[in-house]
Amino acid sequence: MIVTLLTDYGHDDEFVGVCHGVIASIDPSLRVLDVMHGIGRYDVRHGALVLRNTLPYLPAGVHVAVVDPQVGTERRAVALETGDGRILVGPDNGLLSLAWERAGGVTLAVDVTRSPHRLEPVSATFHGRDVFAPVAAHLAAGAELADAGDPLQPDELETLELPEPRQEGDTLVAHALVCDRFGNVALGVDHERVQGSGLRLGEAVEVEVGDRMRMATYAHTFADVEPGELLVYEDAYRTLALAVNRGDAADMLGVRPDAEVRLRPG
Amino acid sequence: MIVTLLTDYGHDDEFVGVCHGVIASIDPSLRVLDVMHGIGRYDVRHGALVLRNTLPYLPAGVHVAVVDPQVGTERRAVALETGDGRILVGPDNGLLSLAWERAGGVTLAVDVTRSPHRLEPVSATFHGRDVFAPVAAHLAAGAELADAGDPLQPDELETLELPEPRQEGDTLVAHALVCDRFGNVALGVDHERVQGSGLRLGEAVEVEVGDRMRMATYAHTFADVEPGELLVYEDAYRTLALAVNRGDAADMLGVRPDAEVRLRPG
Amino acid sequence: MIVTLLTDYGHDDEFVGVCHGVIASIDPSLRVLDVMHGIGRYDVRHGALVLRNTLPYLPAGVHVAVVDPQVGTERRAVALETGDGRILVGPDNGLLSLAWERAGGVTLAVDVTRSPHRLEPVSATFHGRDVFAPVAAHLAAGAELADAGDPLQPDELETLELPEPRQEGDTLVAHALVCDRFGNVALGVDHERVQGSGLRLGEAVEVEVGDRMRMATYAHTFADVEPGELLVYEDAYRTLALAVNRGDAADMLGVRPDAEVRLRPG
Repeated sequence: MIVTLLTDYGHDDEFVGVCHGVIASIDPSLRVLDVMHGIGRYDVRHGALVLRNTLPYLPAGVHVAVVDPQVGTERRAVALETGDGRILVGPDNGLLSLAWERAGGVTLAVDVTRSPHRLEPVSATFHGRDVFAPVAAHLAAGAELADAGDPLQPDELETLELPEPRQEGDTLVAHALVCDRFGNVALGVDHERVQGSGLRLGEAVEVEVGDRMRMATYAHTFADVEPGELLVYEDAYRTLALAVNRGDAADMLGVRPDAEVRLRPG
Repeated sequence: MIVTLLTDYGHDDEFVGVCHGVIASIDPSLRVLDVMHGIGRYDVRHGALVLRNTLPYLPAGVHVAVVDPQVGTERRAVALETGDGRILVGPDNGLLSLAWERAGGVTLAVDVTRSPHRLEPVSATFHGRDVFAPVAAHLAAGAELADAGDPLQPDELETLELPEPRQEGDTLVAHALVCDRFGNVALGVDHERVQGSGLRLGEAVEVEVGDRMRMATYAHTFADVEPGELLVYEDAYRTLALAVNRGDAADMLGVRPDAEVRLRPG
Repeated sequence: MIVTLLTDYGHDDEFVGVCHGVIASIDPSLRVLDVMHGIGRYDVRHGALVLRNTLPYLPAGVHVAVVDPQVGTERRAVALETGDGRILVGPDNGLLSLAWERAGGVTLAVDVTRSPHRLEPVSATFHGRDVFAPVAAHLAAGAELADAGDPLQPDELETLELPEPRQEGDTLVAHALVCDRFGNVALGVDHERVQGSGLRLGEAVEVEVGDRMRMATYAHTFADVEPGELLVYEDAYRTLALAVNRGDAADMLGVRPDAEVRLRPG
C-alpha cells in the first residue's frame, strides 16, 4: 500500500527526508509519494483544502498530512479510515476533515498519540518523524488500524469550517481561500454555484477586493485574455479562481487570505 | 519503463504530486523520476535546453516535459518516439524539439490532445494532470504509441531556434541562454567552437555584456580563481559558461536572458 | 541496498534529477531517497551536521553527500565503510566526518577520484553526476568497496571541528550552528550538558547574542509560549535550540552562523 505525504515542512530542511527514512526503515518495500510540502507554515486550512482537492488523484493508501501548530501539546494524533477505504493520519486539528467529508466520512478512528508504532522517545517538536510516519508505515505494511492506538469516536474529531460563498443580488460574495505560487487565487465557489451566479463565460466581470475594483473576463483559460489581464475561471478542481495571464492576481488585487472577493457581471 | 518529469510547476504547490498520483493510480509499479520542476514559469526555451542536456543521463523511458503557456488553447499535445528509442510527451510548442534533434530525430508522432488515455473532463489549465501524465503512464505501462492519439507528420511539429554564437575577428559573440540558481550563465557555445575561438585555458578573457566589461580567467573549475573572481569555463555539458567562484556571475554582469556576451582574449 | 542523497544542489536546477538518472541508468531497481538538497551553498559544516543527525533515521545503505567547494581541484573523492555497516560517499573535506564519528568510525576507506565506476569524461564541476552517483550506484548494486578506488588509510581523511560549548559560571556559552527555514537556531549543546547548565524547564532564560539581550522561556515545545515569544528548547535531535513560537528566532536575534549565544537563568 502506498504512503502519501503532505506537509508544511518545505524542501529546504531535512524533515521530509527523515520521514522517508523512517518509513523505509520500517518497510523498505513501501512506496512513498510526496503530494506537496509547501503548505503555508502552520496553515491548517491550506493543508486541509489541498488534501481534499488532491485525494481523488492519489491511489487509495495511507495518506499522512502534517500541519501542526500545536505539536507537543495535548492535541491528539489520529489515524482514521474513510468510507471509501482510505486511511488518513495526522494531527487532530481539522486538517483531515475536509478530505474525509468528501471521502465518505469516518468509519473508524483511533488516537495514535501513544501508538505502539511510535518511535521512542517522542520528541516535542517532530511528530512527523516520531508518530505520523511510523504509524503510517506500519499501517501501510498491513498492521490493523484498530491496533494502532486507542479507540476514538468519529464525532470527537476536530473539524474545520470554511467561509461560505453567498449571493447578494447580482453580486457573488466569495473568499480568497488559497493563493498558489503563480498568484492564482482559489475562491471556494463550486461549479454549481457559479452556474447560478449570473456570470457568463466570455463576458466581463467586476472584481472588488477591499477598496480595489478591477475588470476581468470570465474565461476558459489564461491564454484567452491578453498578457497582464485579469481573468475569472474555473480552476482544475472546478472551483472559481482569479488569475492574471502571465502575471500574479494575488499581487494585483492585494488579496490576503480570507479576504472577501465580490464578483458581478460587468 | 521509467517515466521522467520536467516542468515549471515548482515545488511549492501540489501540481507535481498530483501528476505522480495520476501515474501511480494507472500503474502502481511504474517508477517516476523528477528531472526538475524549477524551469522558469512559461520559459519554453529553458525547458527545452534542460531536457536536451539531461536526457543522455536518464534511462530510456517516457519523458514528460510541461512548460505550457498556451494550455487550454488550440495548441496540440503530442507524444513522439525518437530515433534512439525514447518517448517524449508534452505540449507542441518547441519544448521537445532540442531534445529530439539530439536523440535521432522523430520516427513516429501522435497528437494526444484527445487521447483515449486522458482524464475526463480535461481541465483548461492542468494538462499535466489530465493529458500528459496519464498518456505517459499508459505508454510506460505498455500501450502502443500509435494508439495514444491521432497520427501526425513529424514535420508538422513545432521547433525552436536558438541564437547562434558567431566569431567576429578575435571576438566570440555568444548569448546568455540559461542562468542556474548559483548565478552561473550558460552561453550555448559547444566544445568545438570554443577550440576555434582563440581563448586559451589559464589565460585572461575580456567579457563584455552591454556596457559592462570585466576581466575573467578561462579556467577549468571554480576553485582555479580566487573567491569573487569571474571565470569562463566549460560546464558539465561541455558548453561555455560564466561563473564567479563562490559568487553570482549573472548578478555581477547584469546578464538578462538572451543578452549578447562578447568574449575576447584579454 | 538503498542510496540516499544529501547535497547543496537545491531543487531549482537539474542537478539532483541528473544524479537520480545516473543511478537509475546503472541499476533501475535501486531505490534512491532524497535526504535534503537545501544545504547552504558550499556550507560543508551544515551538510556534516545534517548528515550526522539524519543518518540514524535512514536505513543502512550507501549514503552520498555532496557539498563541494573544491570540486575539480586536487581534493580527494572518497567512499568509506563505517563501524555500523553503512557506506558513505562524498568529497574528502570533512563533510562525512561527523557522521562516521557517530557511526562507529571508519573501517575501510578508498580514494574514488579515479574510480573505475566514474563516468568519463569527468567534468570539472559536477562530480555528483560523474563520480559520486555512479560510484554509489555500483556499490549499492553489490560492487566491492575495495574495488571502487585506491586504498586509503582512514587517518588520512579530512575531519571537521565544531566550536565546543562551555560553561562560564552561571552562563552556558554556545554557538549558532544551523538555522532552518523556520528561523530555529541549533546551538550544538547536547542533552547531558544542558542538564548541568542550571537551566530549568519552565523557567526564564536570558539569551545574549552580540549586544542584543532577550528573555526566553526554557520550554518543552513551541506552543508552551505565546505567539511571538522566544523559547529555548531541546530540538528533535536532543540538542539545545532557539525558536520563536510562530516566528523567526534567527531574525529576532540577528544570529549569524557561528555567533556566540550566551544563556543564563533569568
